[in-house]
Amino acid sequence: MSLVIAGSIVFDTIETPCERRERIIGGSCSYSALAASYFTKPRIVSVVGDDFPEEMIEKFNEKGIDTRGLVRKKGKTFHWEGKYGDDPNQRTTIKTEVNVLREFKPHLLPDYREADIVLLGTIAPEIQLDVLSQVKEPKLTAMDTINFYIENSYGSLLESIKKVDIYFGNDEEVKKITGETNLIKAGKKFLEQGPSLVVIKKGEHGVMMIGQEFISGMPAYPCEDVVDPTGAGDSFAGGFLGYLDKVNSFQEKDLRKAAVYGSVMASFTIQDFGIKRLESLTASEIDRRFEEITKIVSF
Amino acid sequence: MSLVIAGSIVFDTIETPCERRERIIGGSCSYSALAASYFTKPRIVSVVGDDFPEEMIEKFNEKGIDTRGLVRKKGKTFHWEGKYGDDPNQRTTIKTEVNVLREFKPHLLPDYREADIVLLGTIAPEIQLDVLSQVKEPKLTAMDTINFYIENSYGSLLESIKKVDIYFGNDEEVKKITGETNLIKAGKKFLEQGPSLVVIKKGEHGVMMIGQEFISGMPAYPCEDVVDPTGAGDSFAGGFLGYLDKVNSFQEKDLRKAAVYGSVMASFTIQDFGIKRLESLTASEIDRRFEEITKIVSF
Repeated sequence: MSLVIAGSIVFDTIETPCERRERIIGGSCSYSALAASYFTKPRIVSVVGDDFPEEMIEKFNEKGIDTRGLVRKKGKTFHWEGKYGDDPNQRTTIKTEVNVLREFKPHLLPDYREADIVLLGTIAPEIQLDVLSQVKEPKLTAMDTINFYIENSYGSLLESIKKVDIYFGNDEEVKKITGETNLIKAGKKFLEQGPSLVVIKKGEHGVMMIGQEFISGMPAYPCEDVVDPTGAGDSFAGGFLGYLDKVNSFQEKDLRKAAVYGSVMASFTIQDFGIKRLESLTASEIDRRFEEITKIVSF
Repeated sequence: MSLVIAGSIVFDTIETPCERRERIIGGSCSYSALAASYFTKPRIVSVVGDDFPEEMIEKFNEKGIDTRGLVRKKGKTFHWEGKYGDDPNQRTTIKTEVNVLREFKPHLLPDYREADIVLLGTIAPEIQLDVLSQVKEPKLTAMDTINFYIENSYGSLLESIKKVDIYFGNDEEVKKITGETNLIKAGKKFLEQGPSLVVIKKGEHGVMMIGQEFISGMPAYPCEDVVDPTGAGDSFAGGFLGYLDKVNSFQEKDLRKAAVYGSVMASFTIQDFGIKRLESLTASEIDRRFEEITKIVSF
């Protein structure tokens, strides 16, 4: 199997009530690819500027991430600055500098075009559609987005949604797109638009999946110390699809397990700034949290 | 085993975006006792005015609820009026007429004083403490509250919290009382204050239990049509303790199952106005939802 992940690789400046970190590495592609790398060897499609550190690309390679689809362009790497409140669910964007991502026209390598699974991570829907059009016969396609594209690229976003099998979204986004306040109704409305599975990420409240044939609900892994919530959703998607790529099966039972692995990967991400925690996990740490979630939901 | 439930029996006037219902029967005691009646024969401690319909008391009796502890006083029954927004989590109080509840001094019957389990439902903490002091050797005590008492009777509320084994609260209340934004931290702070178990009700996001030895998390039963969320928390507590009274065991596995039964009972309550749905359930309807929740969390 093979998993292609398209998304952003960026610098983030993050301020939390306790600390500020300047220009640390982030972006949907970084989080998703690192999370997926514990299950499979993801191939990435993204763009960085000439200010991006070569060592980071080497680190990606060391984690088994195929970076041949990562383009380095003259100019500056995308930069986002944001601030979290005492409640880590409250996030304010201070600054967004799109830079080299503005004109990004992805061109997939021949072997990337043979991908079995495609994750269209958070990035402009036009780029998502472009990537998707280049993959020949994917077995499974999935996407994520953020509020910014719901507000600014609604038409293209709906095009993307129509074309994927799995839609990953947080509760606020899912409600906004469908105009429904009830999450079950919202999820079912999505199923009418194209996807066969909607995965609703609810942060500390866990995840809910609504498929044609089943509903699944799972609490989040209980984290007492949330350091930096950035990238939790991207890590979830990376863990979810990385696991599916590994087991090469998309049955209901696989999707349910994938959601637990997604939650586990997200739980690590939020316990340190940026991608820090995702860089050095062990299989046994991941398995331990999987087992803990199993206990949490047992009765 | 025997379960005593102290709480309010009231008239509620409820407005939702779709409908308005005038002076329907509600109150923490009504919801909890009806929910518990599917598992055991609860005894209630409450007060109503001379305007309260006798037929309702007969209906309680038909459901196996012991109403000898229900006092009828000269005057009007407590009346609350509230309004829900499009989002059923948004509730505004329009009017509160305390009436006969103001001077309520519960006096427990001798056999009530021998209760094994006591639920101090949402009512003034001073009344909760009074009831508790009259029960001789309860095996398990539990309480619930609402924002109103956190804001207006904080001292007595903390006294109540100190004295019970189980605290039922919604996420907003638990955060407010402890000053913590993280629910796990908030739950653990509660454990330092007295209770050995904190049950955090999160509405559509389900329930989280934090005990000395374990954490449990459970999604809510997926309801597409939430008609009237009033009484969901009280129904949860009633189902939870009714089940424990039935099985006469308070081990971790029993508490976990109790939380599922609590969720099931709450899911019925919100599907109609007031106590309507709780009046006519069957054991097989309850069991079916228990099984559905089992499927929802399986992986």
